[in-house]
Amino acid sequence: MGKKNAIYAQSGGVTSVINTCAYGVIKAAMASDFIGHIYAGLNGINGVIEEKLIDLSKESPEAIEGLKFMPGGAFGSCRRKLRDLEKDKALFQRILDVCKAHDVEYFFYNGGNDSMDTVKKLSDFAKQNGSSLKVMGVPKTVDNDLPITDASPGFASAAKYLVVSMIEASRDLESMARDSTKVFVLEAMGRHAGWMAAATALAQRDEKDGPHIILLPEVKLDRAKFMAKVKETVDKIGYCAVTVSEGVKNPDGTFLAESGTKDAFGHAQLGGAGQTVQDMIKQDLGLKTHGAIPDYCQRSARHMSSKVDVEQAEACGRKAVELAGQGLNGHMVTIIRTQDAPYKWHLESTDAGNIANTEKVIPKEFIREDGFHMTEAFRKYCQPLIEGESFPEFKNGMPVYHRLKKELVKAKLPPFESKK
Amino acid sequence: MGKKNAIYAQSGGVTSVINTCAYGVIKAAMASDFIGHIYAGLNGINGVIEEKLIDLSKESPEAIEGLKFMPGGAFGSCRRKLRDLEKDKALFQRILDVCKAHDVEYFFYNGGNDSMDTVKKLSDFAKQNGSSLKVMGVPKTVDNDLPITDASPGFASAAKYLVVSMIEASRDLESMARDSTKVFVLEAMGRHAGWMAAATALAQRDEKDGPHIILLPEVKLDRAKFMAKVKETVDKIGYCAVTVSEGVKNPDGTFLAESGTKDAFGHAQLGGAGQTVQDMIKQDLGLKTHGAIPDYCQRSARHMSSKVDVEQAEACGRKAVELAGQGLNGHMVTIIRTQDAPYKWHLESTDAGNIANTEKVIPKEFIREDGFHMTEAFRKYCQPLIEGESFPEFKNGMPVYHRLKKELVKAKLPPFESKK
Repeated sequence: MGKKNAIYAQSGGVTSVINTCAYGVIKAAMASDFIGHIYAGLNGINGVIEEKLIDLSKESPEAIEGLKFMPGGAFGSCRRKLRDLEKDKALFQRILDVCKAHDVEYFFYNGGNDSMDTVKKLSDFAKQNGSSLKVMGVPKTVDNDLPITDASPGFASAAKYLVVSMIEASRDLESMARDSTKVFVLEAMGRHAGWMAAATALAQRDEKDGPHIILLPEVKLDRAKFMAKVKETVDKIGYCAVTVSEGVKNPDGTFLAESGTKDAFGHAQLGGAGQTVQDMIKQDLGLKTHGAIPDYCQRSARHMSSKVDVEQAEACGRKAVELAGQGLNGHMVTIIRTQDAPYKWHLESTDAGNIANTEKVIPKEFIREDGFHMTEAFRKYCQPLIEGESFPEFKNGMPVYHRLKKELVKAKLPPFESKK
Repeated sequence: MGKKNAIYAQSGGVTSVINTCAYGVIKAAMASDFIGHIYAGLNGINGVIEEKLIDLSKESPEAIEGLKFMPGGAFGSCRRKLRDLEKDKALFQRILDVCKAHDVEYFFYNGGNDSMDTVKKLSDFAKQNGSSLKVMGVPKTVDNDLPITDASPGFASAAKYLVVSMIEASRDLESMARDSTKVFVLEAMGRHAGWMAAATALAQRDEKDGPHIILLPEVKLDRAKFMAKVKETVDKIGYCAVTVSEGVKNPDGTFLAESGTKDAFGHAQLGGAGQTVQDMIKQDLGLKTHGAIPDYCQRSARHMSSKVDVEQAEACGRKAVELAGQGLNGHMVTIIRTQDAPYKWHLESTDAGNIANTEKVIPKEFIREDGFHMTEAFRKYCQPLIEGESFPEFKNGMPVYHRLKKELVKAKLPPFESKK
């Protein structure tokens, strides 16, 4: 059996280790006895549809090695979800056509829930249409909302960055509180699942450490109880550090960030959840606040990635290649935990249909009974994930992050009107 | 001549290396032949006025060594400016009384412009009242707005953190731009001087790197020209990363953050400069934006401190003790640059009156002619400051930051009604 080619593509919001996954896929593919060339889709599935395939053989070995440390999506990511097989039939067919034209028999898609929906549909479509294309999902999302897998590569690094940010900013707050700021609010990403906000719980080792309160999308905000908690903390230790998930909701289910508060003129103030929480605290308690919104920084902070996360990311990439070689199709690699401390894990896989369109929110046993912090069970879950450092090389005081040339393979098919 | 005691105190917004300054002062004091005990003011000058002096001999050697790596103000900082000698005569007298009661003849005040005003006034008051108290200033401020000194300890570390943040977030933006976010806005601290925003210029090594535009308080914002620049950048490379200083001003001199924009209902939207700039871009160009506000994180990120900054901070602390031993009074230690590359510097001092209440804004030759970026001369100035890393120890995936016990020396004087 001759070697067949492979395509790797990135999808959805990027992480600080998505390129480490790519590295795993690419190195395993290059070392395998069943993959010939490995290409990458320029901007995810767009690149496959548009036949814009990056020729990885044109990249320097240095740049390929550099993928292990490069934040962002080295090949470009996408926000494009394919609809059902009937509605987007032409797109699915085009993908098969492009794969066929380039002798591609393996497709590795690195993404989250939506991307696994694509993995599932594309593998089904391929089977139905007599194609031998193997489609494999490689997990990725800072949101950590993929079911079955112990964690999603990318989450632990974002978590570690937020933990460190909370530890450091809390020290600042602690030193300023007597004359100045009393409350600090850190806004973490997470629209529907609060894993990233929750992770900051690890920063609190004693009562002086923040966060003193964590607001999750999983717990509807009771403003009066929240204010009582803030006041109690400030009265006791002089200050209060709060982590708020961007997806925190009002009792009526609307997003806090949408509801806003009124300014002095009665006008609605819009802004993120962090700003809204700050405004509420000023209004209800008259306390001086400060707030940080790390935004993209939390998911691209490769300088503060977790070593465990980096290892899992590369391993997931390598495993996807191994399983594809065994003929697996329409599956996503999963991380299975067998022990908390010391952390032990291995890789398995599951049908991508078990992952697609499902969001794993934080289970009840991880949330403290009052809804304002995390339990010991959560700490046991989260602690091992942020362990170990993986600093990039520094030059001139700055991390060395390579950038790829992204030279494209010559197109073999006529252009395809893909709209978007 | 017998040994006399010393007090060290922290003032104003803290930095990631203010405790490294403290370390320099304390270690030099402990090693000197003219200082007996060294105390620290709890919450800056408040602790001196209230006779709340931290007994450093009660701290473990480990905690003292840990000062080199601890973010925030280990002894508590303050926002308290003494008025003129006549108006606050009772306060100045009280400070002398407390010093006398504890046999203190050396006072080291670690702060910025306002703190140097206190250094100047207190040293003048002491001289006028026959006290032999020596008052020395140790420079500190992330704002980098102190004149004469080449840099202010704290600035370079905040700068390095922002440079790394911009490098990483730009990679994220670059990978998402085709289908999603086109503009990323990073808001840096700096109300009147834009040094921190300016520093991010170092992140841009080629045209794909952000920041593509830097908005400084030193340049009044021409909205139309700014939008043209954003559009030009997005048209050319697909995205645009912007650094905005929190103190950016409108043509009429008002802060951008105050002016706000109107939402769809015609209501004023309030928020920081970063949010305002994002809103403007959405309104004028209809582009999707993301924005980060590091806030306290930028000035407490000890995990990303500059080695040069750490070295200068400790050296400034040690020098202050050395100069006080030589009888200097009412001076602040200054860093004098003698060469850009490789960076060479040494320490001198200047009358605190030359520093007090003066803000060093960015000079014209450092700002590109169009007002939207920095010059090569600025890069030559800023580059050496961010060089070298100084990672803290990590344990359980988190940086090890000690906390002091802050046991107070027994008060010898009646309580003092200080109001504030």
